[in-house]
Amino acid sequence: MKSRVHINEVAPRDGFQIEKQYIQTADKIALINQLSATGVAKIEATSFTSPKAIPNLADAAEVMTGIHRAKDVDYIALIPNLKGVERALACQTDELNFVMSASDSHGRANLRMTTEESLAQFPAMVATAAQSSARLNASISTAFGCPFEGQIAPERVLEIVARIEQLGIAGVTLCDTTGMANPSQVAHLCEQVLARYPNLALTLHPHDTRGMGLANALAAWQVGVVHFDAALGGLGGCPFAPGASGNICTEDLVHMFQAMGVNTGVNLDTLVAASLTLPQLIGHDTAGQIAKAGPSSRLYPLPQAIA
Amino acid sequence: MKSRVHINEVAPRDGFQIEKQYIQTADKIALINQLSATGVAKIEATSFTSPKAIPNLADAAEVMTGIHRAKDVDYIALIPNLKGVERALACQTDELNFVMSASDSHGRANLRMTTEESLAQFPAMVATAAQSSARLNASISTAFGCPFEGQIAPERVLEIVARIEQLGIAGVTLCDTTGMANPSQVAHLCEQVLARYPNLALTLHPHDTRGMGLANALAAWQVGVVHFDAALGGLGGCPFAPGASGNICTEDLVHMFQAMGVNTGVNLDTLVAASLTLPQLIGHDTAGQIAKAGPSSRLYPLPQAIA
Repeated sequence: MKSRVHINEVAPRDGFQIEKQYIQTADKIALINQLSATGVAKIEATSFTSPKAIPNLADAAEVMTGIHRAKDVDYIALIPNLKGVERALACQTDELNFVMSASDSHGRANLRMTTEESLAQFPAMVATAAQSSARLNASISTAFGCPFEGQIAPERVLEIVARIEQLGIAGVTLCDTTGMANPSQVAHLCEQVLARYPNLALTLHPHDTRGMGLANALAAWQVGVVHFDAALGGLGGCPFAPGASGNICTEDLVHMFQAMGVNTGVNLDTLVAASLTLPQLIGHDTAGQIAKAGPSSRLYPLPQAIA
Repeated sequence: MKSRVHINEVAPRDGFQIEKQYIQTADKIALINQLSATGVAKIEATSFTSPKAIPNLADAAEVMTGIHRAKDVDYIALIPNLKGVERALACQTDELNFVMSASDSHGRANLRMTTEESLAQFPAMVATAAQSSARLNASISTAFGCPFEGQIAPERVLEIVARIEQLGIAGVTLCDTTGMANPSQVAHLCEQVLARYPNLALTLHPHDTRGMGLANALAAWQVGVVHFDAALGGLGGCPFAPGASGNICTEDLVHMFQAMGVNTGVNLDTLVAASLTLPQLIGHDTAGQIAKAGPSSRLYPLPQAIA
């Protein structure tokens, strides 16, 4: 139960993509470079998607080629289609994170593709990527519920995972895209994926839409999940779930695991320092608690009356 | 694992006591009456403490005698000393919640009493209460850490629990007063209390200072805790931990348990309706997520382009 956990920092992609204020390319690069020194295992740096769909990430190639590559960090890009694979490989991206949805309606709203249409293009994407040394992962959006359709049958998700594994993709990420998952559901689904596909690297991508993000991460870890997506400052959100908060906050997640005695490889102080630069970059406050309250080891002076 | 959980709503006491804006007595009574219809098991309605120490709760007697008493709800008051017992009994309070700290420095800062000094006055408080039908509980502040002293040895907390039980007090609440607890710690300490004192009703009082509130509640429930303190809208906080958020949010806690299939006895819609009245009462936004994002069962319309 004390296995090391691996943090994939997704703020530069999942966070920045929905910010109203455009973050300058140089600022993105500076933040990613700062994150590279925190000890996170991976950084999802950008997405090679249509600049029309996501204007904030139109500078994907500049970011991916402009960052300093730390030796022990994998730099990931989110990839919706074959064109994205080609663009990402041209920038020496370490890991390609193919994205698709478990629900047709979310897939159509988000990617203009049903679940089957996304899966149908994966073989060509895998074949093209095979010409490089890039590692492959597939993220399954709405794996715990769809904001348009509601509950998603676990059997449907397991079937998608099976097909992803058959394609030779090394990892799969179960995404709680709009924060519909609860701890029991997370534990059950992750347990089944780990049992059936022990050779697949399983990552959980929780959102904190309904305040259950860290509880869901805990539940996943309790059944053996050791890879987590999280966003600095809890950036992110979902255009289809108004009022919602974003991804789970990286520094809050790291703090929880460290307080539990679980090794994350991350230096919390440097992570919090990076988080404190965000409000300046994005023009608003962030959601995380540790950046505000400090770690649980922080002590306070006694009130003067009794000191 | 599907045991019913019991919610003790503490916003009228733990929440209102630190609000800057004075909440009118009639508004307090109206909110408590509204909460009485939500299905919560208990409501901590006020504190019979010094009006000088907590001016916001100076109307304790008016509140306790002014509320409508729902048949299946217990109305609790926090009690720091013998004078408080007498005042509470004069108002037919259902349950007296004695308060003390596991750490001397927090006890002195918060109650002007060390741990021993608080414990020393409990026998007289118990004896006075025994002349009524009021139930007794004792809340142990800083049970998972003290903002001045840091870690509190579990042995010290267990010793305090032992002495509380010997006094014939029926229940004990472990309070994470400034949100220093982590899920492993909560699970271990609660497991030991439940194992050693099976006849004592154990309540967890989590704060969300470091974002771990629901994860801590989950961890406690997993080892058998079924009583939880929570505050509507996540009100509360701690004067000794600036920037911190407050208690765990009742509607978020109820939502999590309901999503997991655990019976809380609470109607979430009525609880959220009560929460939505808070900003008007207290003059600022609240911290909870469910009041903003809705329950995980909420569906959204498809974007027009693909509908």
